Amino acid sequence: MDIRKAALELHSKLKGKISVLPKIAIRDRGDLSLVYTPGVAEPCREIAVDRELAYSYTMKGNCIAVVSDGSAVLGLGDIGPEAALPVMEGKCVLFRQLAGIDAFPLCLAAHDADSIVSTVKAIAPVFGAINLEDIAAPKCFEVEKRLLDIGIPVMHDDQHGTAVVVLAGLINALKVTGKDKKCRIVINGAGAAGIATARLLLKYGFYDLALADSQGAIYKGRPGLTPEKKDMAELTNRRGIKGSIHELAEGADVLIGLSRPATITAADIRKMNSPIVFAMANPIPEIMPDEAREGGAAVIGSGRSDFPNQINNSLTFPGIFRGALDVRALAINDAMKIAAAEAIAGLVTKPTAQMVVPEPLDPGIVPAVAEAVRKAARDTGVAK
Amino acid sequence: MDIRKAALELHSKLKGKISVLPKIAIRDRGDLSLVYTPGVAEPCREIAVDRELAYSYTMKGNCIAVVSDGSAVLGLGDIGPEAALPVMEGKCVLFRQLAGIDAFPLCLAAHDADSIVSTVKAIAPVFGAINLEDIAAPKCFEVEKRLLDIGIPVMHDDQHGTAVVVLAGLINALKVTGKDKKCRIVINGAGAAGIATARLLLKYGFYDLALADSQGAIYKGRPGLTPEKKDMAELTNRRGIKGSIHELAEGADVLIGLSRPATITAADIRKMNSPIVFAMANPIPEIMPDEAREGGAAVIGSGRSDFPNQINNSLTFPGIFRGALDVRALAINDAMKIAAAEAIAGLVTKPTAQMVVPEPLDPGIVPAVAEAVRKAARDTGVAK
Repeated sequence: MDIRKAALELHSKLKGKISVLPKIAIRDRGDLSLVYTPGVAEPCREIAVDRELAYSYTMKGNCIAVVSDGSAVLGLGDIGPEAALPVMEGKCVLFRQLAGIDAFPLCLAAHDADSIVSTVKAIAPVFGAINLEDIAAPKCFEVEKRLLDIGIPVMHDDQHGTAVVVLAGLINALKVTGKDKKCRIVINGAGAAGIATARLLLKYGFYDLALADSQGAIYKGRPGLTPEKKDMAELTNRRGIKGSIHELAEGADVLIGLSRPATITAADIRKMNSPIVFAMANPIPEIMPDEAREGGAAVIGSGRSDFPNQINNSLTFPGIFRGALDVRALAINDAMKIAAAEAIAGLVTKPTAQMVVPEPLDPGIVPAVAEAVRKAARDTGVAK
Repeated sequence: MDIRKAALELHSKLKGKISVLPKIAIRDRGDLSLVYTPGVAEPCREIAVDRELAYSYTMKGNCIAVVSDGSAVLGLGDIGPEAALPVMEGKCVLFRQLAGIDAFPLCLAAHDADSIVSTVKAIAPVFGAINLEDIAAPKCFEVEKRLLDIGIPVMHDDQHGTAVVVLAGLINALKVTGKDKKCRIVINGAGAAGIATARLLLKYGFYDLALADSQGAIYKGRPGLTPEKKDMAELTNRRGIKGSIHELAEGADVLIGLSRPATITAADIRKMNSPIVFAMANPIPEIMPDEAREGGAAVIGSGRSDFPNQINNSLTFPGIFRGALDVRALAINDAMKIAAAEAIAGLVTKPTAQMVVPEPLDPGIVPAVAEAVRKAARDTGVAK
């Protein structure tokens, strides 16, 4: 199958992968007078007195916005809001099909953090949560931080969805390899996903962890670091390694690729310690699974659907948002993310090198993740 | 039927009158690879090169935003964005059911013109057109004006939808009463709807027209007029009448009520010239139809569904936006509005005092209005 041709044909035929449909048909003037004026004034009046009642009388409680400025779309880079729309529509399809959520794509002609933040604040009244998507680093950090107090959960999926699925895969890969939290982890890539993954792994209890960006290892005192990378230099790389990713990886147990295609070779893997390799650059990984196996990797995952262990954040976001909406969480905190990762890992009853995460369309994922997220939200006091 | 109870029950049961649904099911990894990554990258790449292709590969071409800041909702006033949502959802139901348009409600926590304008500009990439709704005057004039050049049509329905349906009703009421464009028209109300209606009627060829606001007649030199009312003072009230609405109405042929409940009495109607009376305040008209009849009105319309001649803009907006989207109009200009009004009037083959406009759910309306709007857009060069 020529995927290029098939994808263009499908998109051209559908002209939009989602549709906004009424839940109720207006058959006569009686219906009209309830759905629209004058009857519609009644819920309006109630909500005007107590706007929390929007959750009782409107779509808000089951509705999320998938918001992008199109500045870091897939591996395509800054392609703009219109060009980002097919991805955001696809995400909305997944939200609905997997988690029963009404998700609407908002691709913004707004490129600086200020305008993204003010736009999201402006549109928030209609939504129960906000999924930020494909916003370039370091802008994405500032945007998310400034939206944390708007009263509905906001999550940048490229950061946290990725961090959660990596942790899920890692939990099972440790079982398969007999490694543990003392293992040495290297993250290739210090953008949105790399930094969020590092933070969540630290939170989970891993401590021997280092990141590399295109300049090599991130270490304390490296000149020209962004504020986020400076934080990472403080929190990671306790060995103080200063070399390239190839040197950084030597002897490590885990390599997580969140950077660019083909930056890792079989020779790199050979110098590692029978490693767990998640090479997640999309669509072309940092190292192809076959080459990683040749180099002696013990567990191999990638973002691709045509190899085992597809470490894709579609395993995470539907259930996380389902759970957050269900309890009207004020935020999606680390406890909820870790609970989600453990729930995903727990769905694989007997992890093997070929299966450390469930299949992406496994219908058991969303209920399990949502349940874990609801519980963690309640336990940490962010549930309504 | 207790409409209050029924409306609250319905809204509470539905929790949202619209839903966002996929047009395609993802059954397996093959589907996933077309709808989402990696296949979705193909339309993204195409649109990145030519963003007009968003109309070919995404929902944009059939999608509109129903945007309100909740500052002038129905007769309820400034009730805020959450409380406005039931109305906007209802409107989206009508757009879909009557015109097959994917309409999504965006109720904005943004109250000054600047933030409404910047938010609408920011979200525009996803939409083929913008329906502004229930934004208070005079802010609504500035907001609409500043959005006219964003490349997709923007129409404030409270202004122009109302103007179009009034003109439609008037065209047929003139036939019923034997009056013509020389008739004397009084508009009670100089807010968004009143001023837009005055402008469209002038454009159509009526010239003996005056407006009143809560201070009485609007005339040249009246102190404290807003810029929009000042314009009206220049363009209307050529008789220079300075009194109250009651004095202004004396001897007039047409009274259009776009103000507040019960401001007109049978005594006022008696002093008019067997008038056409459209009393459109909602839900309680300026004068109840029975009382207007008692006063000797020749044709009586209101916004209510429980009397004949429901002069409601639901007759207009679905067809106007359908037509504008179909030809990818750059704007919705006066020619398109007049064409829409004439098409609506033309649907009543034999107008009578009891029927000057079609029934709101008449399935013939949208096709006829859309066709007229498409033609007018092409004729005036705003069609793509």
